[in-house]
Amino acid sequence: MKLLKGNIVYSPKLGELVTLPHGALLLDDDGVLCDILPAAPEHADAVVTDYGDALVMPSFVDMHLHAPQYPMLGMGMDLPLMEWLNTYTFKTEARFADTDFARRTYRRLARDLITGGTTRVCMFSSLHTDATLILMEELEKAGVTGYVGKVNMDRNSVPELEESTEQSKRETLRWLDACGQFRYIRPILTPRFTPSCTDELMAWLGKLAEERGLYVQSHLSENDGEIAFVRELHPDCPQYWETYHKYGLWKDHTVMAHCVWSDERERAAMLEHGVTVAHCADSNINICSGVAPVRTMLNEGLSVTLGSDIAGGAMLAMSRVVTTTIRVSKLRHMKTDGKDGFLTVDEAYYLGSTAGHRWFGADGGFAKGHPLHAMVVDDAGFAEPVRELTLRERFERAVYLMDKNAVKAVWSEGRNVI
Amino acid sequence: MKLLKGNIVYSPKLGELVTLPHGALLLDDDGVLCDILPAAPEHADAVVTDYGDALVMPSFVDMHLHAPQYPMLGMGMDLPLMEWLNTYTFKTEARFADTDFARRTYRRLARDLITGGTTRVCMFSSLHTDATLILMEELEKAGVTGYVGKVNMDRNSVPELEESTEQSKRETLRWLDACGQFRYIRPILTPRFTPSCTDELMAWLGKLAEERGLYVQSHLSENDGEIAFVRELHPDCPQYWETYHKYGLWKDHTVMAHCVWSDERERAAMLEHGVTVAHCADSNINICSGVAPVRTMLNEGLSVTLGSDIAGGAMLAMSRVVTTTIRVSKLRHMKTDGKDGFLTVDEAYYLGSTAGHRWFGADGGFAKGHPLHAMVVDDAGFAEPVRELTLRERFERAVYLMDKNAVKAVWSEGRNVI
Repeated sequence: MKLLKGNIVYSPKLGELVTLPHGALLLDDDGVLCDILPAAPEHADAVVTDYGDALVMPSFVDMHLHAPQYPMLGMGMDLPLMEWLNTYTFKTEARFADTDFARRTYRRLARDLITGGTTRVCMFSSLHTDATLILMEELEKAGVTGYVGKVNMDRNSVPELEESTEQSKRETLRWLDACGQFRYIRPILTPRFTPSCTDELMAWLGKLAEERGLYVQSHLSENDGEIAFVRELHPDCPQYWETYHKYGLWKDHTVMAHCVWSDERERAAMLEHGVTVAHCADSNINICSGVAPVRTMLNEGLSVTLGSDIAGGAMLAMSRVVTTTIRVSKLRHMKTDGKDGFLTVDEAYYLGSTAGHRWFGADGGFAKGHPLHAMVVDDAGFAEPVRELTLRERFERAVYLMDKNAVKAVWSEGRNVI
Repeated sequence: MKLLKGNIVYSPKLGELVTLPHGALLLDDDGVLCDILPAAPEHADAVVTDYGDALVMPSFVDMHLHAPQYPMLGMGMDLPLMEWLNTYTFKTEARFADTDFARRTYRRLARDLITGGTTRVCMFSSLHTDATLILMEELEKAGVTGYVGKVNMDRNSVPELEESTEQSKRETLRWLDACGQFRYIRPILTPRFTPSCTDELMAWLGKLAEERGLYVQSHLSENDGEIAFVRELHPDCPQYWETYHKYGLWKDHTVMAHCVWSDERERAAMLEHGVTVAHCADSNINICSGVAPVRTMLNEGLSVTLGSDIAGGAMLAMSRVVTTTIRVSKLRHMKTDGKDGFLTVDEAYYLGSTAGHRWFGADGGFAKGHPLHAMVVDDAGFAEPVRELTLRERFERAVYLMDKNAVKAVWSEGRNVI
């Protein structure tokens, strides 16, 4: 057994925060969480790791990001969407035909994720099979767990970044065959978005998802122009989501990024089919897509998680994504004259952590019976407070101010990876 | 003479960016900028500092921040304004009666400002004279330059943080008498805001400002409740700004923080009297004050600068304040259906740098004939790009991604302070 001592903080439910000053987590030898203790036992038959006065919190989950856009983080932010895609995005992704470049970039990305406290991801690669396998390798080596998708896109791209329908199918199968080597990273089917995939490819992917029991991720209702284009491509579908539904891609555990403009009917279809929203606040502002109605989604009972969406988003650190999500929700709060209550820090942290872990089947913040996902945050480096702070106050300050220097240890899938 | 070699980037005017790859700055022995060179001369009769491939850019100017709120950075962000003031702000500021605590906190703050590339400030202290002098000392030691104000507040506070009118006058004079010891930090008169100061105190401050030729800083039109309160206190003044004007505090170089709700008439009064706006995007969102009409202000020709406004703002680093300002402007852009164009990265950097230096009398970005204010940003630590970037692209990425690790050198008032 292992005993981790520290100040335990977690959000078991939306809007709830549990704080256990000088508490402890009890793990079995495989790193599975057996118990959450309000106080560390005097004599425990366990190997003790004492994190002292640091905060021990569930790690972050990044439910939407584009790994091959990491090289363009913080660039082209003033361009309109189509110009941004053509000047930066597609050309950047095309570079991942070079496996050496992919290796260097993905090693760096994997390290930056884990040092920022992100231990689970649901991630887009590019269309390149080899680079995708390299990405999975590097994530696994660094201790990041979760799902990665080789992107499918057989239309409406640029010449450097398009595959034929046949090629897309063949490469998808080659990729899937090679995924058995990974223990902590699994494949997820990833049609880029409706405009990028022919009906034939979509239908084939839907069938494959069913046959092999694979999850699906894509984009939905991000902005006006995109929605109009989808309508043009699928005149038989009254709404965007139906272009996924008709091919069997709209199902339990499907992750849809953005959903900025999803109306009541589209949201009801998410709830009915178990589709999860990956809300990407920073990206939605940077590209001027809009502000998603997160409070409404939560009130309706939807599963809402957060994504950094690099490089539409310009920040990889999920702590910053969480506070940006709060800020954006405050703007919506003001815009709706207070009707849409803003997200509190407890709520936004829940979305960036617990809600994501829940998608992976591990509910409750710190999930008993599951391998531990946690980060240890040392706030001793922040400015000296004027009085002793409560653990709740320290939690809020940590979420607002933490950077990788404050992350002292990380546990991912039961393993101490930092 | 001194010659600084590097990639020169600066914004001489709103929306203009000059990039000189492998250029140089020529300084005299006092650190005064004599020339900006598109290429470094082969043989210069000067001591050369070669910053290699790094970016050499004008430093940041933080035109509104509360030094004694640094200990509460990132705390109480979910509270409404009045509760936030009473639970955190006033109690935190009251702690600065303790000069040892002030010394420790202000030393840390000064260092964090300079390592983040902020070399000029226009800053609020608390009402404590001794702590204010310590703040000025610590800023000067760290190489930060600019203006600091002992706060005046003789009504509507909490018992721990109020001074009588007589005390406020006496302490202000004691403080001013002691300011002669500083070379780079000057005093600025600082009535906290209209609700905090009796008419007698305001009138006395206005007279003092005139007699001694002192500048003035305060708050204006931050939120609804505050504006209504001011109207109640000054029924003779149709608008908030007139409560400053009638006491001689509304004049050239007066800095007014926020101005979120300043209408056309109030803005026209700013333009007419040479009043400068300190726009505080992060604070305005965190406290749900609103989104200031920055584009309109700029179109009208107002002098707009940026402030971190810690600790209503939760980020001290001006690079992050600049990108937050862009994000907030994009939300206003969307809200006005594109009528208010968002701030480009060039424009927001101009506001956080050149516009501030201009208030100090040094115009043009890199101001020839003035002691140098610059930061050297090394972007080699960012992710490897897919191709060689233009200097303009590197500038954008640096503004979005820089942290103190990327700031390799800082020049403040002609001195190399880091």
